[in-house]
Amino acid sequence: MDAYTPTPEDKFTFGLWTVGWQARDPFGDATRPPLDPVESVHRLAELGAYGVTFHDDDLLATEPDRAKAIERFKEALDATGMKVPMATTNLFTHPVFKDGAFTSNDRDIRRYAIRKVMRNLDLAAELGATTYVCWGGREGAESDAAKDVRDALARYKEAMDVLASYVIDKGYDIRFALEPKPNEPRGDILLPTVGHALAFINELEHPELVGLNPEVGHEQMSNLNFVHAIAQALWHGKLFHIDLNGQHGPKFDQDLIFGHGDIKSAFFLVDLLENGGYDGPRHFDYKPLRTEDIDGVWASAAANMRTYLILKAKSKAYRADPEVQEALRAARADQLAVPTLAPGETYENLADDDFDLDAAAARGYHYTRLNQLAIDHLLGVR
Amino acid sequence: MDAYTPTPEDKFTFGLWTVGWQARDPFGDATRPPLDPVESVHRLAELGAYGVTFHDDDLLATEPDRAKAIERFKEALDATGMKVPMATTNLFTHPVFKDGAFTSNDRDIRRYAIRKVMRNLDLAAELGATTYVCWGGREGAESDAAKDVRDALARYKEAMDVLASYVIDKGYDIRFALEPKPNEPRGDILLPTVGHALAFINELEHPELVGLNPEVGHEQMSNLNFVHAIAQALWHGKLFHIDLNGQHGPKFDQDLIFGHGDIKSAFFLVDLLENGGYDGPRHFDYKPLRTEDIDGVWASAAANMRTYLILKAKSKAYRADPEVQEALRAARADQLAVPTLAPGETYENLADDDFDLDAAAARGYHYTRLNQLAIDHLLGVR
Amino acid sequence: MDAYTPTPEDKFTFGLWTVGWQARDPFGDATRPPLDPVESVHRLAELGAYGVTFHDDDLLATEPDRAKAIERFKEALDATGMKVPMATTNLFTHPVFKDGAFTSNDRDIRRYAIRKVMRNLDLAAELGATTYVCWGGREGAESDAAKDVRDALARYKEAMDVLASYVIDKGYDIRFALEPKPNEPRGDILLPTVGHALAFINELEHPELVGLNPEVGHEQMSNLNFVHAIAQALWHGKLFHIDLNGQHGPKFDQDLIFGHGDIKSAFFLVDLLENGGYDGPRHFDYKPLRTEDIDGVWASAAANMRTYLILKAKSKAYRADPEVQEALRAARADQLAVPTLAPGETYENLADDDFDLDAAAARGYHYTRLNQLAIDHLLGVR
Amino acid sequence: MDAYTPTPEDKFTFGLWTVGWQARDPFGDATRPPLDPVESVHRLAELGAYGVTFHDDDLLATEPDRAKAIERFKEALDATGMKVPMATTNLFTHPVFKDGAFTSNDRDIRRYAIRKVMRNLDLAAELGATTYVCWGGREGAESDAAKDVRDALARYKEAMDVLASYVIDKGYDIRFALEPKPNEPRGDILLPTVGHALAFINELEHPELVGLNPEVGHEQMSNLNFVHAIAQALWHGKLFHIDLNGQHGPKFDQDLIFGHGDIKSAFFLVDLLENGGYDGPRHFDYKPLRTEDIDGVWASAAANMRTYLILKAKSKAYRADPEVQEALRAARADQLAVPTLAPGETYENLADDDFDLDAAAARGYHYTRLNQLAIDHLLGVR
Repeated sequence: MDAYTPTPEDKFTFGLWTVGWQARDPFGDATRPPLDPVESVHRLAELGAYGVTFHDDDLLATEPDRAKAIERFKEALDATGMKVPMATTNLFTHPVFKDGAFTSNDRDIRRYAIRKVMRNLDLAAELGATTYVCWGGREGAESDAAKDVRDALARYKEAMDVLASYVIDKGYDIRFALEPKPNEPRGDILLPTVGHALAFINELEHPELVGLNPEVGHEQMSNLNFVHAIAQALWHGKLFHIDLNGQHGPKFDQDLIFGHGDIKSAFFLVDLLENGGYDGPRHFDYKPLRTEDIDGVWASAAANMRTYLILKAKSKAYRADPEVQEALRAARADQLAVPTLAPGETYENLADDDFDLDAAAARGYHYTRLNQLAIDHLLGVR
Repeated sequence: MDAYTPTPEDKFTFGLWTVGWQARDPFGDATRPPLDPVESVHRLAELGAYGVTFHDDDLLATEPDRAKAIERFKEALDATGMKVPMATTNLFTHPVFKDGAFTSNDRDIRRYAIRKVMRNLDLAAELGATTYVCWGGREGAESDAAKDVRDALARYKEAMDVLASYVIDKGYDIRFALEPKPNEPRGDILLPTVGHALAFINELEHPELVGLNPEVGHEQMSNLNFVHAIAQALWHGKLFHIDLNGQHGPKFDQDLIFGHGDIKSAFFLVDLLENGGYDGPRHFDYKPLRTEDIDGVWASAAANMRTYLILKAKSKAYRADPEVQEALRAARADQLAVPTLAPGETYENLADDDFDLDAAAARGYHYTRLNQLAIDHLLGVR
Repeated sequence: MDAYTPTPEDKFTFGLWTVGWQARDPFGDATRPPLDPVESVHRLAELGAYGVTFHDDDLLATEPDRAKAIERFKEALDATGMKVPMATTNLFTHPVFKDGAFTSNDRDIRRYAIRKVMRNLDLAAELGATTYVCWGGREGAESDAAKDVRDALARYKEAMDVLASYVIDKGYDIRFALEPKPNEPRGDILLPTVGHALAFINELEHPELVGLNPEVGHEQMSNLNFVHAIAQALWHGKLFHIDLNGQHGPKFDQDLIFGHGDIKSAFFLVDLLENGGYDGPRHFDYKPLRTEDIDGVWASAAANMRTYLILKAKSKAYRADPEVQEALRAARADQLAVPTLAPGETYENLADDDFDLDAAAARGYHYTRLNQLAIDHLLGVR
Repeated sequence: MDAYTPTPEDKFTFGLWTVGWQARDPFGDATRPPLDPVESVHRLAELGAYGVTFHDDDLLATEPDRAKAIERFKEALDATGMKVPMATTNLFTHPVFKDGAFTSNDRDIRRYAIRKVMRNLDLAAELGATTYVCWGGREGAESDAAKDVRDALARYKEAMDVLASYVIDKGYDIRFALEPKPNEPRGDILLPTVGHALAFINELEHPELVGLNPEVGHEQMSNLNFVHAIAQALWHGKLFHIDLNGQHGPKFDQDLIFGHGDIKSAFFLVDLLENGGYDGPRHFDYKPLRTEDIDGVWASAAANMRTYLILKAKSKAYRADPEVQEALRAARADQLAVPTLAPGETYENLADDDFDLDAAAARGYHYTRLNQLAIDHLLGVR
C-alpha cells in the first residue's frame, strides 16, 4: 500500500455498468461474460471505493428477477459498507427509445419514459441516493427535418418538471443532475454541452433541484476545455455530480480510464475539484478496454483511483510551491479576483483613470513560466 | 434582376469589416488595399443591403480623424438610406488586449476596456443602433494555470452589469448581444458556445437587456449543430441578432460566404429564422476570400444575399408541399407539440396508461423519407 | 419513374450488411429483425441496383448452414441478374479480433485471420468478384504503449503479401482494395487516411494488385476533404473501389445516406467520379437510421441512388454551362493543366522570366463567382 | 544547472521565425518588436541550442539589405558555433502566393516560386544545411470548384522534380523534407497528412532525395495520432526532419511549446525518436504566446528543450523498468516483431494450424497495466 491507495474517505464511486461492460461495440460482439453486480460491489470495496451507482437495468445483469436482484444487491451493500450516492435510468438501450424518451415524437413513449424514471426514483430513495442523473442520450436527431427543437425542449422541460414534482411530493432527498453530450448515439443530442444544459435549467419550475453531471469525455468530444466547463458549472452553483474518464478529442465516445486521455487537463481538473468547493463523489464513468479480460477490468478500476490520487498530491505540492505563488503574482492572477470597480465606484469613475496605453500593452503576463512550473509538478521533476 | 435580388425589406446587413477585410492572415500579408467605409456603404446599398454595422475602429480605415470619419459616414448613410442596426467595439486588435479586455488579469486594462465600449455606445445610440454586440474574442487563456475561470466570469459579469447600467442611465434603446466562440484567437475562449453564453446571462443584473449574437461558423468550429443552437436561443427568447456565414467543421475560423459551408444546414437555418419569430437583421459576418480582388469582394457580398433568398424560397415551397406535410405527420412530428401530460394530468395519471411496449418499439419514424424530401427541395428537383 | 430512377447501367451496389443492419449501436439493442440476404438481393434488384457485396459472415444472417446459405444466395443472384463485384472478410466482430487481425500481438490470431480471408477469397472468385476489400478496423491501439507501430506495419505488409501470392497462385482475377479509417472501433486505427494507405501500398511485394476503397465518412471523420483524397487516389491510379455515404464531421462513424451529410462535397465527388476516369461500381456503405422500420430501410436504399443520379445530372449541366466555362478561364484553372516548364525547358530558363511581382500579386482569382455558379447549379436555380 | 539543461549534443534547433514571431494573429496586431536574428543566435546558443533554421525572408527582420543581413548572420554563427542544419523558403507571406506557389493556377507565379527556392538553396548549401524543408501552406483551395487537384499534384511533382535536378546538378548535399498540414491558411491544403505526403513522394523522379518534416500540431489538427505517423514515416525510411511543438486538437494551428499540448503523446514521441533510429535535429517550430514579453520568449525557448530532456530521461527509465518489460511480454508485444509466417512457410502451411478460437478470444492483452505503468513513469511516481 503506497500513498496512492484509495480509501472510502476519497469518495470514489463507480457505475455498475463500467466494470460490468461486456465490451460489445458497434463493430464487435462481447468479449467478456456478464458480471454479477454483487461481485462488483465486493471487488470495488476491496479496491478502496466508497460506493457504486446504477441504472435500473444494471441490477438485472445476471439475475432476471428484479426483486431478488435488488435484495442481493442490498445485502452486498450491507456486507461491504458501500454506498449508493447516485442512481439513474436506462432510457436508451431498449428499441422503444430509438427516437428519444422525454422528447420522442411519440407521446405514449414520452409518458412511458417518465414512468420508468419514477419507478427507479423510488428505489434510488430507498437506497439512500441523493443524486439522480438524467443522461438524455437518445434525445436528439439525425436530420434537422425530424423535429422542431423548440418543441423538444418544451417536452424536455415538462418531463423534468413532472419528475421534480414527484420527488417533492414524495419527500425524497434527491436532486437531479443532467448529463450533457454532443452526439452518439444520436447524430446530434439536445443539450450538447455543459453550457446548453446550464441554460436549460433556468427555464425549469424547480431550478434549485436540478444541476449537472458533466463528463470529461463528453465535453472533449467537442474539443471544449473541460476545466473551463467545470469552473463555469461551479460558478453557477450547479456541479451536483461528476463523471471522470478520458478521451482523445473529437471522435467516438472512448470512456478511457481517468487520466489516460489528456493528463494535463486531468491535473487541472483535480486541482479545481479539490480546491473549488466540490464535495460530492468522484465518480468514474469509463469502459475497461475491450482487449482486457476480467483481471484487466479490476486493474482498470484501480488505475482510475490511483491516477486521481497522484494528481491530488501533485495539486497540493503545486499550490504550496513558493515559486508557483510568485509566478501567479507575476501573471497578475491575483488581480483577477479584485473587482474591476472599487466599492462605491460606478462607470463614471472610469473617466478619471490615468492610463498609459502603451505601457499597459507592453507588459508581459509570464504565463509560459507558470505553465512550465505546472508541467514540472505534473512530471514530478520539482 | 431575378427572384433572388435583394431589397432593403430583406433586412440584409454587413459589417464594414467584412468587405473591408484586407486579407491579412496568420501567414500572409494583406492582398487588398484599405476600403473607404463610405464606398462600402454606397456599394452595399446598390447591391440591395438594408444596412451596415461597425466596430469603433472600422470607421478609421482610411480617415484617421475620428470626427471627420464619423461625419463622412453619416453623410453616406443619409445619401443611401442605409441603417446601422448594430454596432460593436474592437477589444481584440490592440496589443493591450492580449490577455483579454473585461477579463484581463490586469485591472487597469479591464477598466480601459469598459471605457472604450461606453464611448462607442454613445455613437451607436446616436446612429440609431438598437443592438450592441460583445464578442469577447480575447477573453480566455492558453493554459489552465493562467487564470481562475470563476474569477474571470465574475469580472465578465461585472463588466456587463456596468454597461447595462450605463445604457439604462443614458436612456439608450440598446440591448446587448453576446457572441460565443470556442477558440481563436485564444486557445480557449470563455463562453465558448451558445449554451455557455445563455447560461451566463442568467447571472446578470439585467438579463432582459442581454441576449445572443450567434455565428454559424463559431458553433460549427465545435462541430455542434447550429440549427439546434438557434432553436434553443429562440426558445429562451434570446436571439437578439445573428451572424451568418459558412465553415467547414473544426478548423480555423473560415468566415466563408453564407451557404458556402454546409448548405443543408443553411437551408434549415433559413427555414427556422423565417418561421421561428426572428425579425432582426440578417447580418453577414464573413470574409471575402484572400484570393479575390475588389470585384470578387462585391461578388461575395452579393453571393451571401442571393444564397439566403434562394433558401428562403425553398423553405416556403418545402412547407407548402402536401407530401412534406404528410411525411411530418407520419413522423409524428405533430405529436411533439402536444404536451406529454394532458391539461389537468399529473404524474399519477401515467400509471393508468395502457402501453404496448413492443408495438411502440416497432413503429418506424420515417425520417428518411422526410429528409429526402428536404434534399429534393434543396436541390430543386421537386 | 422519373429522370432519377436507377438502372443496372448505373452500377449501383450495396453491401448486404447495409440494408441488413439490425441497428444495434453502442448504447442500444437491435430495432429491426434479421434480414434474409435473398430478400435483400431481390428488393435491391427491384429498386434498380446492379449488384451486392458481402462479408463472409453476412450470408449467415438467417441461415446458419454456410453451404445452404451460399446456395440460396446464388439462386437469388441468378434469378435477378444481380452481380457481386466485390467481397470482403469480417475480421472485426468476433472477440478473437479484439486486438486486430493481421496485426494482433497474438501470432496465432494473425495466422487465423489470413486463413479466414483465403477461404472467402475462394468464394469471392467463384461469385465473380474482382475486388476484395480489406478494412482493418481492428488493426490499431488505444495506447501508444501497446504495440510498436513499425512492427505492426511489417505484419500488415506480410499479410497483404501472402494474400497477393495466394490470389496469383490461384489465378484469381481479383485485386485488393484497402479501406482507411482513422478510429472506431479502435482508439487509433493503422492506415488512418487515404494518404497513409497509399503510402503503405508502395512497400508491398505486389503493389499493382493493391489499391484503395476510400469511404466518404471515414475521411470526413478527420475533417479532411474527401474530394481531394479521391483526386489524389486517382492521380496515383489507385481508386479501385469506393464507399459512398454521408457524415457530419469528426464524431462517431455515422454512415448516413449518400448526400445526407455534406451535399456540396457530394456534388463535387460525383462530378469527379463521372469525369475522372473511374468506372467501377458506385457502392453504398451506409446504415439505415436506427429509427426506421423495414419500409424506411428500402426508402433509404432508394435515396442513396436517387441522390447520386440527381447530382450526376447537375454535374453534366454545370460543365456544359458556358458561364461556368468562362469563369474557369477567369480563374486561370486552365493554366494549371499546363506544365510549369515548357517542353525542353530546365530550371535555367526560369532566370529569363520577365516577371512583374506586384502585378501578379494584384490579380484576383474570381473563385467566389465560380463557387456561386456551382451553388446555383446544386440548388437548381440555373 | 540541473539534469535537464541542454547542450549542443542534444541537437536542439529553432527556427528564427519562432522566437522572432512578433505575435501578429488574425485578430490582433504585433505585441513584440522585431528581433534581430543575430541576437536570436546568441541567446539560443547561451540557452544550449545546437543550431538555428530560417526562411529566406527571416534574415531580413531588422536589416533590409540581404547581403549585409547574411554577413551579420554568418558572423553570429561563427561566434557561437551554432549550426544551420535546415533552411526553407517563404512561399506564403507575400500576396503573390495567395493561390499557392508550386500549384498556383497562375503559371508565371509557379515559375517565380521555383526561382525563389533555387536562390535560397544556394544560400542553404553555403551555410551547410543538409535538409531543405518545403511547407506548401498556400498549395490548396477553399472551394472544390477552384482547381483540379490532379493537375495541382502534377504541378507539385514537377516543381519537386525541377528542384531535385537543381540540387543534383549543383552537387549540393541537400535532401528535401515535405511538411504536411491539413488546413490554415488555406481551407484545405494539398498533402494534408504524413500519409498523403509519403504517398506523393513515390511519384517523384528522385524519391530518394525527398522525405518528410512532420509537425506535431499539424497531424493533431486532424486529431490523428502523431506517434503513429512518425512510426510510419520511420518505417518508410522518410523521417528526414521533425517539427516539435504542441496543439490542443482540431482548431487553429496553435504552435504551443513542445509538451504544452498532449504531454503523454509527447512522451511516447520522444521514446520513439530516441529509440527508433532518428538522429537528425530536434527542431522546435512553435510560437511564444502572444501574451509574453521578450523575457517570456526566452523562457519559452528554454521550456521546449527542458521538456524534451525530462521526457527523454523518463523514456530511459521506462524501458529499463523490469516490470514494464514483463508487462510488454504479458501483452505479447514481443510476438508482434515475429513474422506471422515462419521462414520457409507459405500460406499453405496455415491450414495445419491447431487453433482454439474460443481460447484465443478469451485471452486478455493487459494493456491497461502497461499503460498505467507508462503513466506512472510520466508522472514520476515510480
